[in-house]
Amino acid sequence: MELSQIYAPVEEDLTKVEATLKATSAVDFPHLSQLLEHSLKGDGKRIRPALTLLAGKFHDYNLEKLIPMAAALEIMHTATLVHDDAIDHSLVRRSRPTVNKLWGEEQAILLGDYLFAEAGSLTASTNNLRAVKLFAWTLKTISRGELDQAVNAFALSQTRDQYIQRIAQKTATLFTTSTESGAVLSNAPEESIQSLVRYGYNLGIGFQIVDDILDFTSTEQQMGKPTGSDLAQGTVTLPVLLLIKEYPEEAAVRALFHDHEDRENVRRVIELVRSSPSIVQECYAIATQYCDAARGALQNLPNGEARLSLEELTRYIVRRKK
Amino acid sequence: MELSQIYAPVEEDLTKVEATLKATSAVDFPHLSQLLEHSLKGDGKRIRPALTLLAGKFHDYNLEKLIPMAAALEIMHTATLVHDDAIDHSLVRRSRPTVNKLWGEEQAILLGDYLFAEAGSLTASTNNLRAVKLFAWTLKTISRGELDQAVNAFALSQTRDQYIQRIAQKTATLFTTSTESGAVLSNAPEESIQSLVRYGYNLGIGFQIVDDILDFTSTEQQMGKPTGSDLAQGTVTLPVLLLIKEYPEEAAVRALFHDHEDRENVRRVIELVRSSPSIVQECYAIATQYCDAARGALQNLPNGEARLSLEELTRYIVRRKK
Repeated sequence: MELSQIYAPVEEDLTKVEATLKATSAVDFPHLSQLLEHSLKGDGKRIRPALTLLAGKFHDYNLEKLIPMAAALEIMHTATLVHDDAIDHSLVRRSRPTVNKLWGEEQAILLGDYLFAEAGSLTASTNNLRAVKLFAWTLKTISRGELDQAVNAFALSQTRDQYIQRIAQKTATLFTTSTESGAVLSNAPEESIQSLVRYGYNLGIGFQIVDDILDFTSTEQQMGKPTGSDLAQGTVTLPVLLLIKEYPEEAAVRALFHDHEDRENVRRVIELVRSSPSIVQECYAIATQYCDAARGALQNLPNGEARLSLEELTRYIVRRKK
Repeated sequence: MELSQIYAPVEEDLTKVEATLKATSAVDFPHLSQLLEHSLKGDGKRIRPALTLLAGKFHDYNLEKLIPMAAALEIMHTATLVHDDAIDHSLVRRSRPTVNKLWGEEQAILLGDYLFAEAGSLTASTNNLRAVKLFAWTLKTISRGELDQAVNAFALSQTRDQYIQRIAQKTATLFTTSTESGAVLSNAPEESIQSLVRYGYNLGIGFQIVDDILDFTSTEQQMGKPTGSDLAQGTVTLPVLLLIKEYPEEAAVRALFHDHEDRENVRRVIELVRSSPSIVQECYAIATQYCDAARGALQNLPNGEARLSLEELTRYIVRRKK
């Protein structure tokens, strides 16, 4: 099933989220408008707003609150990407030049700050304090995860638990907040909220593991950004952890972590992962476990098209090629 | 009157704000703790939290809400400084090395993001939606002002109106939010809130004009950071606007804006301002007008120690040497 079919129950409302994103760009400062339009352009997967809307479908589907919340989470996600790209000096994202490439890192930092504030403003417009607190907690957790990643760059002695904890902070938190806020804003009972929290958490972990696999196995053309970039930045992801376990004495792996600047080591380690089907398979098996757990979390929610979509999404994210 | 005397009515409660800032640093991630402690260390002037507390003194002085709000505004201010220093590659602030100097720009960006989130979280803990919305609006406005400054770096054809609008966004907004949130959280009637908004706005403009003068007339030892840095970054401030008006044909001024990299031009323009008492005097006269307007805005508020402190603060900020 394609993403557009999975989104079908909320398709019309996702266009309202797009309209909100577009309205965000319409400020009376032409240069800022241009930066906003460029960064919020509608070519992302929009998984997070879709999650908020789908999670809102189980109870009072209140678009007046769900639309700004969904837009807020996409904007927060965009802000983190803008800052990440500035930090990593990345030049391409979604097959387009990054903000830092076009306008410099200075403006990328300030645009990211503006986007965080805009996202906070949209969240506050729901007039729901639980959503606001969740939003602030999410941004704290993401920044903390990113900082943990920065501090542990090129550190070879990391455990799988540390990796899972880091991607939970960096990625799963925002997935969790997407489903949780949808549930909260539709006045779901606490039990349903917690089911959707478990769903979001497990889906987010599964999503990030697949992202980390694709950074090795996919191509720049498919991903819309250079692959192998995690490794080049020294970020130790699941494929590398399994590689270290499988080939503890492999020289290229050790060498990579001793000489960060040697691009040849990066290339060799990527080649090792690509030519080790067992490693890629094991990564996919672990991602699938999380996606199964996400589906399992939905079992007490009402049957219907929203639940079917959320279930199908857990299969899509393992299957996806970009 | 010294700042400590001006703060006397809220002195004890400012120590509670410090305790909140300290508590913020106590996270179970030692590296992040270290970054937070370094950036939130108690050697700033703490004007913003003092404004929130003093503005709260006129009605229901509710510390349960005012303390976290005051801490939130100091943390937001700190976050903007951490990002500014990363953007400007500044090495020294408050006589100590900056976060970017000690830990790199990558970590400075992420720490700033974390601080914004922490500030948002503290604001949300007041359970007051108006304060939350004000907070988000403030961060949007500051980022916008900073972006405007970045875009207009080394642009010679700027008006005084543009300058005032920019420092209103960059600086006065947070002063306004400091007094406004104090008034809102103490359940002040709308008329009092608006008086304190006018006070905060005018004080903020006056404060920034004096800051911009001191960047020319003060020393690194007094300021705790290098002087002349605005000009080196291409930021056109009031002294430069008056210099251009007074010496429209002066070669050094024109040269500066044609060759940004020539430090000799920066030195020469700084010398020109320093040796033009009429320019410095006119800047101070304009700052004083705003400070007088700030005092005037207080006239309908109840007399008492809080009002006296706010009045005295308008005199202090013109008199200050750092």
